[in-house]
Amino acid sequence: MSQVSILEKHRKQYQPKVPPSLRQGIAKVKVVEGAAAEPAKDRETIRKSFPNTYGKPLLSFQAGVDAGETTPLRIGVVLSGGQAPGGHNVIAGLFDSVKSIHPQSQIFGFLGGPGGLEKGKYETITAERMDAYRNTGGFDIIGSGRTKLETPEQFDRCIEVINSLALQAIVIIGGDDSNTNAAILAEYLKAKGLTTSVIGVPKTIDGDLKNMHIPVSFGFDTAVKTYAELIGNIARDAGSAKKYWHFIKLMGRSASHIALEAGLQTHANVTLISEEVEKRNLSLEQIVDDIARVISARADAGKNYGVVLIPEGLIEFIPSFKTLIGRLNDLLAKNEAAFAKLETADVKIAAMSGWLEAEALSAALGKTFASLPKTIQLQLLLDRDPHGNVQVSLIDTDALLAELVGRKLKASPAYKGKFSSQRHFFGYEGRAAAPSNFDADYCYSLGCVAAVLVKSGRTGYMASIRNVSKGVDQWAAGGIPISMMFNMEQRHGHRKPVIQKALVELEGPAFKALAAGRSRWEIEDAFIYPGPIQYFGPSEVSDAITQTLELEQG
Amino acid sequence: MSQVSILEKHRKQYQPKVPPSLRQGIAKVKVVEGAAAEPAKDRETIRKSFPNTYGKPLLSFQAGVDAGETTPLRIGVVLSGGQAPGGHNVIAGLFDSVKSIHPQSQIFGFLGGPGGLEKGKYETITAERMDAYRNTGGFDIIGSGRTKLETPEQFDRCIEVINSLALQAIVIIGGDDSNTNAAILAEYLKAKGLTTSVIGVPKTIDGDLKNMHIPVSFGFDTAVKTYAELIGNIARDAGSAKKYWHFIKLMGRSASHIALEAGLQTHANVTLISEEVEKRNLSLEQIVDDIARVISARADAGKNYGVVLIPEGLIEFIPSFKTLIGRLNDLLAKNEAAFAKLETADVKIAAMSGWLEAEALSAALGKTFASLPKTIQLQLLLDRDPHGNVQVSLIDTDALLAELVGRKLKASPAYKGKFSSQRHFFGYEGRAAAPSNFDADYCYSLGCVAAVLVKSGRTGYMASIRNVSKGVDQWAAGGIPISMMFNMEQRHGHRKPVIQKALVELEGPAFKALAAGRSRWEIEDAFIYPGPIQYFGPSEVSDAITQTLELEQG
Repeated sequence: MSQVSILEKHRKQYQPKVPPSLRQGIAKVKVVEGAAAEPAKDRETIRKSFPNTYGKPLLSFQAGVDAGETTPLRIGVVLSGGQAPGGHNVIAGLFDSVKSIHPQSQIFGFLGGPGGLEKGKYETITAERMDAYRNTGGFDIIGSGRTKLETPEQFDRCIEVINSLALQAIVIIGGDDSNTNAAILAEYLKAKGLTTSVIGVPKTIDGDLKNMHIPVSFGFDTAVKTYAELIGNIARDAGSAKKYWHFIKLMGRSASHIALEAGLQTHANVTLISEEVEKRNLSLEQIVDDIARVISARADAGKNYGVVLIPEGLIEFIPSFKTLIGRLNDLLAKNEAAFAKLETADVKIAAMSGWLEAEALSAALGKTFASLPKTIQLQLLLDRDPHGNVQVSLIDTDALLAELVGRKLKASPAYKGKFSSQRHFFGYEGRAAAPSNFDADYCYSLGCVAAVLVKSGRTGYMASIRNVSKGVDQWAAGGIPISMMFNMEQRHGHRKPVIQKALVELEGPAFKALAAGRSRWEIEDAFIYPGPIQYFGPSEVSDAITQTLELEQG
Repeated sequence: MSQVSILEKHRKQYQPKVPPSLRQGIAKVKVVEGAAAEPAKDRETIRKSFPNTYGKPLLSFQAGVDAGETTPLRIGVVLSGGQAPGGHNVIAGLFDSVKSIHPQSQIFGFLGGPGGLEKGKYETITAERMDAYRNTGGFDIIGSGRTKLETPEQFDRCIEVINSLALQAIVIIGGDDSNTNAAILAEYLKAKGLTTSVIGVPKTIDGDLKNMHIPVSFGFDTAVKTYAELIGNIARDAGSAKKYWHFIKLMGRSASHIALEAGLQTHANVTLISEEVEKRNLSLEQIVDDIARVISARADAGKNYGVVLIPEGLIEFIPSFKTLIGRLNDLLAKNEAAFAKLETADVKIAAMSGWLEAEALSAALGKTFASLPKTIQLQLLLDRDPHGNVQVSLIDTDALLAELVGRKLKASPAYKGKFSSQRHFFGYEGRAAAPSNFDADYCYSLGCVAAVLVKSGRTGYMASIRNVSKGVDQWAAGGIPISMMFNMEQRHGHRKPVIQKALVELEGPAFKALAAGRSRWEIEDAFIYPGPIQYFGPSEVSDAITQTLELEQG
């Protein structure tokens, strides 16, 4: 085995805590069926799409008596999408559970994500290999990938692999899309007469896979604590050096849970929330004005420094910006030949400005376009995807805001401060961090829950643990039919049943806490410095949960 | 008091460990004089510059008996330059020491760095305020600044402040320059007949203030552990997602100790060391070729991912690049009027290329210039300082290398991999982190040492603790005459006595460890994941020291 750090050596010895119902081993878990679970709306449409797996009962686990003789379980496991801290522990929980009921049970790890399942590329997880990955970050034990399993052709290839390995189950560890596809695969297998279980496990650092039964997706806790550590350190540096405004972009394209939690943990001077921008229909200019207002107010108090948190996906939530992108796409398509002939950057920008202004409808958009820094204008005109569409995701939102805020301040006669900015983007720094005690426990337990669901022959379920804002003694394990989380959404031109992404609720307690604190945090130096994740020490430090979880569930 | 994080609350209770000689309190420390200390060379020149403070003895401390009645001490303290974790603890050690010998002793914190001393802006440190900053990161208790105190006029203003506050001593917490100036101030005060002590404390995350008596500057331990945490997390992400090369720039303009230590801690695939680049006279192209070689070799093994560590100051250590900068400065000065008339970026670049190629001497430099990405060319021509010189420090070295490596790979027919890069810069993330146990102990002890030096009436000394690679029970406290660390260097056109910056020694054990390991780390996934700093838990985790310190002193 390769060399490991001293911390990792000690962490490998950590025995994750599990809910009371799982403490006697999965052989002694009693699965209790509750009411049949149905989605909140679109019931008939969804029932028709899932004739074999719709309307199954909610399941809760209790400590029971040994069910007697058991046969070995053969389970395939898939890590899907971006890394989230604790993925290895899900596999460890699954591994220990199936081995505990029969030594000949086996876990097959599909390599490189869902593509590995489709292609039958796998590795049998040995005890030695498993031990090397306990309580570690990353998905490197088997790798991950972004292949979407959604077509019948893909499913048929999966069936071949399932049959060739004689698998009783596939456990898919992934986000909302991967769990949606897990449910579709479950339905497909059932329709084809297979008894193979498909079980989903809620993963994503973004925190946008949650609902009344899934209090949080795993990895959010560790990732956001890592970002909060860095933001706190930067805030402390800012307040010491007193000369920089730090614009910090945080990973997460859709929901702003990470920015929200990081703002709550650190009391950054400004925390932008994409959902609020969209709801209040804020323009880019309004966002810039608001940041400039805070910077001016602090400058008046002699504080030419601070911290601004920016969710990665912000730009896509600005309604007027979305409209601009749409018009740019249209105009680029319409004037494709003419545009292709233009040679220099300046000429291209001028041409587009002319086209925008020529249309009564888009004159206002022309102003927005004209207000952008040249680098961003060029990015909008040049960095297009294979379909010719502008790639909003490539825009450096932190640079854009810092530049526009700087201009705004320069143009403001009332502003007497000094504005100097530093930019940061945190994402890869936390996605593969070693799981916090919370994520280590939660993930290991989710792995055990998945094993119980497989053992009791369920399919189309997501592993669930509720009450996780309380101590592990109060954690309640069970299973949720994935189809009950569905609603119908427009995707690629079709209405499809999908798990709804949980965006930040502006009426929810976490956002309200931010809204209640932020006017003070703007002006005062009310920074909080969370420091690095602690795996040892006082429980209130090492077992702390996120404020979002505390506020939403506590 | 403002709200603090749970971790900070617990950390404030931490009682830093001190060397045995200091454990009975500073009243009972016996100061033992050793041999008169002289610099290694330039002795006569340095003696002439420091007639009053030259040739003082090395001091070592022993536990002694109480010296009897003591009078209150009034000490001013200054935080100079960039933040380093543990600065607050130096002040805490000083504070507790002087209060322990007399309750009316006082610590005056000069605000905003050396400028605060010059202007007489200060804050009297109260017990309550001190308690709020124990074991915390940052320099925010009194702020820091970069004013250099070096002229007689400045020193005279300091004397006024010293007299008005009746200070027995000034403690200057800073890097090589600040400690050099502390010695000059000590000499100046002595020459003017003042008995005021000036004591320096070795601070800098860069790790370049060290010698046989100063094993390490404070802050290096915590800062580099924070960067290593992030690099490890990114390496784990890279090895999981298997699709990105991460180019990580690390703070530190002069020495590459941070990159070296981070490379040792994480086994990054490539760790560039500026001192090696200079010594081996490597060109930018050779550096790019070498990174491309590693990327190609890994691609051949199916690994299209990895981590490259880049010291922030790299570019200034590339001899040919330095020459190019020099020529650019000359040509821009010579052609100032003509250059000012040129309008577009392209025309400016073309003009400079022409001038370079017109000279036989600089035709090769013209090639180097032509090989640079356009953004870098523009930066070299446009971002000049008030003296008209190119600002090398503003160059995005990480972007430059990623771009050139990408081009190189694209042009190589043998390369069959996929190259996609992500860039990071870590500096502010670690400079103000809460000090590790090592830095908390070391800094608090240094503060106590400074108090002893003041109490025994020494001036022009630096606080020193040796044997810090061993447990605190073996730490040896004392004082070193700063003048013995001097050598004569050319600064701003004059030969001046200065503390020599400790660059990475290519014959030293730390670099040798990197050189011995790196060919394996290039190709294998031999990454080590250090994880976040732990303040609790097993001592081998929470009290770990850096590998540099272990290798150099252990």
